[in-house]
Amino acid sequence: MRVFLKIEYDGTNYCGWQIQPNGLSVQQVVEKAILSLTGEDVCITGSGRTDSGVHALGQVAHFDTQSSIPAEKFASALNQFLPEDVKVVESYKVDSEMHARFSAKRKTYRYSVYQSKHPRPLIDRYSARVEFPLDISAMQKACQKFIGAHDFIGFSSTGSDVKDTVREIYSASVESCGEQIIFTVCGNGFLYNMVRIMAGTLVAVGLGKISPDEMDSVILSKNRKKAGATMPPRGLTLVNVEYC
Amino acid sequence: MRVFLKIEYDGTNYCGWQIQPNGLSVQQVVEKAILSLTGEDVCITGSGRTDSGVHALGQVAHFDTQSSIPAEKFASALNQFLPEDVKVVESYKVDSEMHARFSAKRKTYRYSVYQSKHPRPLIDRYSARVEFPLDISAMQKACQKFIGAHDFIGFSSTGSDVKDTVREIYSASVESCGEQIIFTVCGNGFLYNMVRIMAGTLVAVGLGKISPDEMDSVILSKNRKKAGATMPPRGLTLVNVEYC
Repeated sequence: MRVFLKIEYDGTNYCGWQIQPNGLSVQQVVEKAILSLTGEDVCITGSGRTDSGVHALGQVAHFDTQSSIPAEKFASALNQFLPEDVKVVESYKVDSEMHARFSAKRKTYRYSVYQSKHPRPLIDRYSARVEFPLDISAMQKACQKFIGAHDFIGFSSTGSDVKDTVREIYSASVESCGEQIIFTVCGNGFLYNMVRIMAGTLVAVGLGKISPDEMDSVILSKNRKKAGATMPPRGLTLVNVEYC
Repeated sequence: MRVFLKIEYDGTNYCGWQIQPNGLSVQQVVEKAILSLTGEDVCITGSGRTDSGVHALGQVAHFDTQSSIPAEKFASALNQFLPEDVKVVESYKVDSEMHARFSAKRKTYRYSVYQSKHPRPLIDRYSARVEFPLDISAMQKACQKFIGAHDFIGFSSTGSDVKDTVREIYSASVESCGEQIIFTVCGNGFLYNMVRIMAGTLVAVGLGKISPDEMDSVILSKNRKKAGATMPPRGLTLVNVEYC
């Protein structure tokens, strides 16, 4: 049977989702837990990569198993073999045509920043620090410009060989949450580093370096240099992946 | 001059505030940073101990220095020498009679729990998991019973040689905050493990094991066995210490 796992992880100590020649990946520790539980040396397929240091509330991955363990019991059973910073929060059986990557319809990410003169150890792990105050209402206005289908090539890092760089953004918001400012974005897919560059562009708006009215031209320019900086991985979390 | 430091730390990787024979303490890393910055081998005095794994948003400590660095510059200067999980968020000069421990008038702690069948890596570092749903309104009613001056000996762990076990609680609240339930308590002082046992008692109330109406008799009994469990350190944070 094919099993879908919904996985939450603190990416701080991992080289990302995908197995890499050097560094421990989240995929690797989940595969090892499956091996320990079932004796099967499977390869799991994630909905997509997350970079080194990026977190997930709801990464989704699938694998095929001959195990007689009911699919919905895999979460608790695998958690016995997983470290504290990687846990399966849900497991369920799916049709064999379902694919964690190719069947994904929508992904939601959030990017968190906080403003402080000094680093704040209790926020810093999941949020990126900005030294100067941010204009949240300007950021809220600006983030609306991401909505719709756009060629986001200017919001991607080089090094990717993706040909079609048009992505559709369904929703985008910026909200103040305690001491954090959280940018949440949902779309049909994201280019390499796209959310971190979107967040960096919104921070540039918040700092007054880009006006919300300039956002359309920044997107239309398709020029990486017009967009903001690539924000650090610690502020990024893959919130969920939807399949229907 | 005497300098007060307000220190924020993620206590996960420390054996607590105070220097211990085995394990790295927060006090130790701050003293080392002062040595690196000023060349002075000082002993800093904290407002009180925090146990292994307990966090702080606003631990306060003092030290005396001959350094010509202005007191308010110590925060940024020391942060260059401190690890990511310990940072000074404020520094200021005080009169030489001011003492981080003996001059403290009020302390505020918070204890966070979350309810989930599975451990949640992105919440788990600063919050303790409870497997079953909690009745928040019962917890809110129960926590009010802590307010006032009481002999809290039944809410302390043995191993302390404190003679006067009466403490005054000025305020106590339970609030739902996203997926966390946060107990915040302010008092003139706390016995060993007192906040963790108060939190455990409120969890027992939330689970229906103790009714809010029984709280008075639990406190009056002065019997450790009548109160709830000592909750794990990860959910506890020293929020601030007030001096006037």
